[in-house]
Amino acid sequence: MRQPSLPVYLDYAAATPIDPYVLKVMTPLMTTQFHNPSATYLAARTVREYIDDARHRVAHWLGANSGEIIFTAGGTEANNLAIHGVMREFPNGNIVISAIEHASVREPAQKYDCRVVAVHKDGQIDLQDLEKKIDDKTVLVSIMQVNNEIGTIQPLRQAAKVIQAARGHRQHKNTQPLYFHSDACQAANYLDLHVSRLGVDLLTINGGKIYGPKQSGVLYVHSGTRLLPLINGGGQERGIRSGTENTAAILGLAAALDIVQSNRQEESHRLSLLQTYFFEGLEKKLPAIRINGTRNSRLVNNIHLTVPKTDNERLLMELDQRGIQATAGSACSASEELPSHTLKAIGLSDEDARSSLRFSMGRQTTKRQMRYVIETLITLVN
Amino acid sequence: MRQPSLPVYLDYAAATPIDPYVLKVMTPLMTTQFHNPSATYLAARTVREYIDDARHRVAHWLGANSGEIIFTAGGTEANNLAIHGVMREFPNGNIVISAIEHASVREPAQKYDCRVVAVHKDGQIDLQDLEKKIDDKTVLVSIMQVNNEIGTIQPLRQAAKVIQAARGHRQHKNTQPLYFHSDACQAANYLDLHVSRLGVDLLTINGGKIYGPKQSGVLYVHSGTRLLPLINGGGQERGIRSGTENTAAILGLAAALDIVQSNRQEESHRLSLLQTYFFEGLEKKLPAIRINGTRNSRLVNNIHLTVPKTDNERLLMELDQRGIQATAGSACSASEELPSHTLKAIGLSDEDARSSLRFSMGRQTTKRQMRYVIETLITLVN
Repeated sequence: MRQPSLPVYLDYAAATPIDPYVLKVMTPLMTTQFHNPSATYLAARTVREYIDDARHRVAHWLGANSGEIIFTAGGTEANNLAIHGVMREFPNGNIVISAIEHASVREPAQKYDCRVVAVHKDGQIDLQDLEKKIDDKTVLVSIMQVNNEIGTIQPLRQAAKVIQAARGHRQHKNTQPLYFHSDACQAANYLDLHVSRLGVDLLTINGGKIYGPKQSGVLYVHSGTRLLPLINGGGQERGIRSGTENTAAILGLAAALDIVQSNRQEESHRLSLLQTYFFEGLEKKLPAIRINGTRNSRLVNNIHLTVPKTDNERLLMELDQRGIQATAGSACSASEELPSHTLKAIGLSDEDARSSLRFSMGRQTTKRQMRYVIETLITLVN
Repeated sequence: MRQPSLPVYLDYAAATPIDPYVLKVMTPLMTTQFHNPSATYLAARTVREYIDDARHRVAHWLGANSGEIIFTAGGTEANNLAIHGVMREFPNGNIVISAIEHASVREPAQKYDCRVVAVHKDGQIDLQDLEKKIDDKTVLVSIMQVNNEIGTIQPLRQAAKVIQAARGHRQHKNTQPLYFHSDACQAANYLDLHVSRLGVDLLTINGGKIYGPKQSGVLYVHSGTRLLPLINGGGQERGIRSGTENTAAILGLAAALDIVQSNRQEESHRLSLLQTYFFEGLEKKLPAIRINGTRNSRLVNNIHLTVPKTDNERLLMELDQRGIQATAGSACSASEELPSHTLKAIGLSDEDARSSLRFSMGRQTTKRQMRYVIETLITLVN
């Protein structure tokens, strides 16, 4: 086997390199066209027009109106805006989330009256439990489109039907809304984001996970949805997100979304072949390794394994020494030492959780690389 | 007179171009070194070390410890973090701000029990009124280091003494803290930011105003200061500001701060000569024009004028047509149609406020440019 050029980066779910075209789009906004888009001279108004155009393009991929797109500084902020924003607007309401949400949903949600929907072993939410957890005071349901650790795609449309039914039941009893939010940070490279097909009122996108700039994000807010801003000030983004616009990041995010959404079917097909190749290789050569999550409803770039009786930190270090960059679950929990809440929720023991690792593939991932990963795992595990 | 090359950009208080060296520092973090700094492989740990180094250098200019530096997505977010963060931690407390704070201080402050300190005609706060407005329940005082519209430098050290005295008086009565925050967004290019010399517990810096990237910011939080995060999630920035770090922006801000603080005395001297040249030229040739603010305690880059009986929007348009980019006060108020609260606070009539404009100079401003501005104003006003 010819060795691939190293390193083999397999942590695309944690960070993606900026697409060279995206950086090219961003550069003028950081150099010659640096003007504050709120100023009135022509050069500034030109920058404002670029932002309007970017907003329009993002809206296109979501099947939304431009006025429903709020640019934020990243996915975490967008998730926080959705949750704090709605929950502060309706202080007597409660919130329902899945058991495997990202920390940027879970942590803000837990500041309120928060109910948690169980997930099945494959990581999909229990729709019956969702139905049970929603009551007359629920104002927000937040379920991620794809789990960031095990890659399980959630049945959002079916969840939306449950929510729609709950809305119907309460119609005559109270006027409190029931909004549906989804964190699409991991989904945006590979899945359809059309908000009315998904049935959501709020949707989070993260530029830093789609080959765009870090700390660029979008919160889609369906027209008429009531929420309070997190950040007050000059009144940018229709008063929902103040602060001088990060024009370069906004244009970068829009360009990145254009690219990933235009190519998502082709790229999904390519990665799903690599994913199958990897899983089949493992099954044949390392049958002791268990695949977490599901094979049926899994994001094409995600591989999540338990290598029984190994210490994942040590294994990751050894992989790194051999040029393979992967992670134990989520890199987003800056200093979390506890076993992952996601793995606990799908029934893994603490021991198995500490023997688990995630490979997340992306645009530069090749078959040769994945073959090298299998071979390296065989060497290390045996 | 030889005309300068156009346009003449005089809106540095609204936005600064990125320093080419800063962009050079940022570029690798957007291309090859894109890794999530929370990951454990070597490449990611290297990125983490860069962030640590940037934090250390920012701390240096503030005379602070690295652990006291919180990176945010811009000045607006940092101001919001200071104010919401402290006021939510102490929900029974009140806040005291000056009458001429930026919207990103004023708007969050007004969500709480907020007392406003009057300013003198020159824009400096009334220190006696400050003393009166602080009571036993005051937990936070926020006074900007420099006003963004009229350039008045505030007597922060004297304000700190008033605050220190108030702390002394209450010592035995209650255990509630009394913190002092300052928005240094406009100051960082030209003034000393040493937090113990200024006497502040919290300080805001904005990368987008110091030739660094937009939506990069710092909140200095003095060790032991209690405040709640605005944004919850992965626990980055010691749990005070979650979200995958914008490494490029963090390194860019640190590099920009290094440059402006290293050169601040030389650059201040250069701009103060231009400022004097401009004011003297105006006094001689357009005596009807009034200079707002103060000549004694004014930021070196700020020029703020009232041109009686003119419509500033029209005048700005005519200036723009002649290649001069300036603004009516603050560009940060995205869609504000009301006369500026700052100009009202220093006693300008609504009519005079609508006849006022701001020129803010910066690194590319030359004497030839300022001469051209004077000549153009003469043509337009007469």
